[in-house]
Amino acid sequence: MQKIITLTTDFGVTDEYAGIMKGILKSNCPDSHIIDITHGIRSHDVRQAAYILYAAHRFFKPGTIHVIVVDPGVGSKRRIILAQANDQFFLTPDNGTLSLFALKNLITACRVVECQDLFIQPVSRTFQGRDIMAPVAARLAGGMPAANVGPATACDTLTVLPLPQPTFDKNEQVLAGTIIDSDRFGNLTTNIHKDDVKEFFSSVMDKQNFCLQVANTFIHGLSESYSEVSAGSILIIIGSRDYLEIAVNQGSALNTLGVSLDDPVSLRGQS
Amino acid sequence: MQKIITLTTDFGVTDEYAGIMKGILKSNCPDSHIIDITHGIRSHDVRQAAYILYAAHRFFKPGTIHVIVVDPGVGSKRRIILAQANDQFFLTPDNGTLSLFALKNLITACRVVECQDLFIQPVSRTFQGRDIMAPVAARLAGGMPAANVGPATACDTLTVLPLPQPTFDKNEQVLAGTIIDSDRFGNLTTNIHKDDVKEFFSSVMDKQNFCLQVANTFIHGLSESYSEVSAGSILIIIGSRDYLEIAVNQGSALNTLGVSLDDPVSLRGQS
Amino acid sequence: MQKIITLTTDFGVTDEYAGIMKGILKSNCPDSHIIDITHGIRSHDVRQAAYILYAAHRFFKPGTIHVIVVDPGVGSKRRIILAQANDQFFLTPDNGTLSLFALKNLITACRVVECQDLFIQPVSRTFQGRDIMAPVAARLAGGMPAANVGPATACDTLTVLPLPQPTFDKNEQVLAGTIIDSDRFGNLTTNIHKDDVKEFFSSVMDKQNFCLQVANTFIHGLSESYSEVSAGSILIIIGSRDYLEIAVNQGSALNTLGVSLDDPVSLRGQS
Repeated sequence: MQKIITLTTDFGVTDEYAGIMKGILKSNCPDSHIIDITHGIRSHDVRQAAYILYAAHRFFKPGTIHVIVVDPGVGSKRRIILAQANDQFFLTPDNGTLSLFALKNLITACRVVECQDLFIQPVSRTFQGRDIMAPVAARLAGGMPAANVGPATACDTLTVLPLPQPTFDKNEQVLAGTIIDSDRFGNLTTNIHKDDVKEFFSSVMDKQNFCLQVANTFIHGLSESYSEVSAGSILIIIGSRDYLEIAVNQGSALNTLGVSLDDPVSLRGQS
Repeated sequence: MQKIITLTTDFGVTDEYAGIMKGILKSNCPDSHIIDITHGIRSHDVRQAAYILYAAHRFFKPGTIHVIVVDPGVGSKRRIILAQANDQFFLTPDNGTLSLFALKNLITACRVVECQDLFIQPVSRTFQGRDIMAPVAARLAGGMPAANVGPATACDTLTVLPLPQPTFDKNEQVLAGTIIDSDRFGNLTTNIHKDDVKEFFSSVMDKQNFCLQVANTFIHGLSESYSEVSAGSILIIIGSRDYLEIAVNQGSALNTLGVSLDDPVSLRGQS
Repeated sequence: MQKIITLTTDFGVTDEYAGIMKGILKSNCPDSHIIDITHGIRSHDVRQAAYILYAAHRFFKPGTIHVIVVDPGVGSKRRIILAQANDQFFLTPDNGTLSLFALKNLITACRVVECQDLFIQPVSRTFQGRDIMAPVAARLAGGMPAANVGPATACDTLTVLPLPQPTFDKNEQVLAGTIIDSDRFGNLTTNIHKDDVKEFFSSVMDKQNFCLQVANTFIHGLSESYSEVSAGSILIIIGSRDYLEIAVNQGSALNTLGVSLDDPVSLRGQS
């Protein structure tokens, strides 16, 4: 039974680093399938990796092995861990890449990757995606039991990032959040989940009369598709990641608004 | 028999979108092979997708399933279609990505993708490459008959873009076209096909005395390889896409000439 | 037995060129595995290809077929060769991409790729990665003997680039080299190998008192991991390519120092 191994890194696609990891994976487990989730995580941006990994993992089958190499602490004493969640495996430095899984209590098992016999020796202190994570992932894909990587550790020992959470002031009818990502189209993802939006609407008095404020722009109404508004117009929508998204039909909300990551947004009813 | 599934999108390689589609494809059809034609189509540029898809498809074997997700109308009433041409399959929004196949009368069958049972539910209105096209492609690669996707539709109902066509004035001995693409090397592809060039030469009186005009530059002679001219010099050549191309040996014609897509070019004989 | 085929090109990932090569490879050898080492070599930069290919090949299993298409002389009389080194195969224009293998006397066999029957006809003079190298690699991966590609040629006939070599002045205690690459993180790779550094330390009198000079910056001490210094601080380290590297912890040495490729660096002891 072929296993899928995914890669999520901040290597970019210009250097040989991702290619080397694939060489190790395929040379040691020819029967695995490698899928790039992305190598375009901003350098050292563990939080972005956490968001994207969580958004992506839902579309992979049980048994998939996700390898995450966004590792600003490479070579330090930070641990490398093998965690399980939703019947999938996650091999990653313990630096917060699994924060969303941890916050949702989805992690069912966790081990510290310590078994030197599995590693490429000598293990470098600059590229452990290559020397530790790739060979371990190849062995796991080849059928090695998870227990062989090292000792179990309590799931609540994992590093969890202080991710910004939206707040809802029912009296003021304001659901406040922040921008957490922008994509290639310039669509802006907020940290306001569709369930938060649902709760907002279940409590606002006037369901027709609300807007999203971002910078000095007020966007009225919630669209169901980009093309509901004319080309070049701004809109809000529940995006494909299930979060409230600010977009411009056939344009870039990022360029139009000139906002930055972590800038505030707020969904406002008639208070 | 393993099937090849190709992806042609405007997703870029920074976000997780292409990785998610691959996760769905491989999770549902482990035996397929996925090949990226490109994820670098300019955002929403259906015409560029049409040109590149046509240039690339010739090198894939019969039975290949091409999935094209350049979809500015996602979530609107535009159709998603499954077309057949040259014994290959094309799964795409009906927005013009198959224009070159249509103009050449290569499309032999076409169906509207409507069978909800095949889709990931609930189908979003922002990412139907994920919710519709990937699961349908996986099923097709797994052997599902094309007829299962939905009802047949006449091939001449497909959307065809008004692609610029070259014109040949035999009296003036001017073959006029436009620049339709530039590649990573700064090579400029025109819409003048090698057959147009052949016709031009069969009708000009003086085969040694002709030039290509682009902006205020006149390029004399037709090269057979980039290195026929000295490094840094401009040339014209029949490019690998079979269209007349403007290039600079070991340099960039795009940067040298400062031209833009859709700018005119003309091949001129002695009139 | 499945064969790995790798690609190292200057195609970028925006155009269809790499996808076309993969289409030919998979259409003709469905059982092969294709791994991108990188398509991000700077346009026509054979030297960068030589460095990256050498750094990457060590992590691939015997029998791997590496295809290198950085080919400024495409369509000229430059040869295409099939070389063997470290039990792996290398299919490349004879323009210097194998310089490091040649300098280390690792090339054990070499043939000129000439057998027209293997090529896609008519062979273009603008894209021979497609018309010659991809179909030949597919046949090799499918089990065709190397001898079928064309006649043997002496290994010492291969083109070797004049790569900059470090120099060590023992009297002055100065090991001088140059910057040969920068990666996505802005880490700067020098041409000073870890063995050169070892020799430097075996001969300097005061092992605690040395520094690296680059531009007007002096960096003291050799770090063992990036995070040994504070975030934003500069350091030197033996990088994952086994060469001395200049880096900034969680930052970019390239941006911090404002240096360029081929700029000099020197490791200086107390003379």
